[in-house]
Amino acid sequence: METWDAITSRRNVRTFQNRPIPDGDLEQVLEAGRRSPSSQNWQPWDFVLVTDRAQLRDLAGVFRGAYHVAEAAAVIAIVGPVSDNEFHRAQFDLGQATMSMALAAADLGIGSSHAGVADLGLARRILGLPADRHWVLLLSLGYPADRQLAPVRKPDRRPLADVVHRGRW
Amino acid sequence: METWDAITSRRNVRTFQNRPIPDGDLEQVLEAGRRSPSSQNWQPWDFVLVTDRAQLRDLAGVFRGAYHVAEAAAVIAIVGPVSDNEFHRAQFDLGQATMSMALAAADLGIGSSHAGVADLGLARRILGLPADRHWVLLLSLGYPADRQLAPVRKPDRRPLADVVHRGRW
Repeated sequence: METWDAITSRRNVRTFQNRPIPDGDLEQVLEAGRRSPSSQNWQPWDFVLVTDRAQLRDLAGVFRGAYHVAEAAAVIAIVGPVSDNEFHRAQFDLGQATMSMALAAADLGIGSSHAGVADLGLARRILGLPADRHWVLLLSLGYPADRQLAPVRKPDRRPLADVVHRGRW
Repeated sequence: METWDAITSRRNVRTFQNRPIPDGDLEQVLEAGRRSPSSQNWQPWDFVLVTDRAQLRDLAGVFRGAYHVAEAAAVIAIVGPVSDNEFHRAQFDLGQATMSMALAAADLGIGSSHAGVADLGLARRILGLPADRHWVLLLSLGYPADRQLAPVRKPDRRPLADVVHRGRW
């Protein structure tokens, strides 16, 4: 798919077909995350790939907003570093990695949605996280149950004229 | 360009040709940022587009690591919200917007590199930021002076087998 089509087709997808994602496609999405830039090439991320249905259903319990995890074809749990720096740059860098994976997924016709984690203890048990990892978020992946990905003409966003300032604020 | 080529061709570019970026291409990059997802559709970003050479040279003074801003064809200053939430979710969301813009740029053959800001007071004066905005980072854009963007075969990153955990950590 053309890049611009992937960028404009990506939307939050929270209902998925009961159809697995080929392993090669999952690898490609993960590879996009691995290639992301980060402050001083710190690469402060680890990814836990979950495709087992029972495990996904358990994982959906970590946060009310993570209900879509239960029916996703796969979830990538994006795990933060032992500690962030004073500028919270790891948050920024994990945002970059997440976006790269969401766009790599859209390119393959795969919908995605991310969710935070409220019950970290539960996530830690389900994912086997080391005790020194204190935050994680989830990226659900799957083929959309509602409609195929296609360019979104009018995204629900602030207008460009409001967001963009020219030369000075 | 195909999405996968854009993802694999994106690299940090810090030396630029002395050649402007067409307005339509800059708009497309900004539009990619505007479309990014964010926590509860918060959209905690503002973008200040700078293309004036004198202003870019001044702006390069905000941080040692921002030297590339001086010779960039354009810079998008990505401005954070009045205050972040307790999870630093704005940092994460601005990371998503930045990555989307970097990939939209790569799709157009435009190199990019982001830089932090150490001297916030100087950035505030140059960009005319409101007094209640406390962080900003810079995304330099321009046509690479070293070599055209092309897929990077072996990126300088941790191996996939180290980054990815299957089922459990």
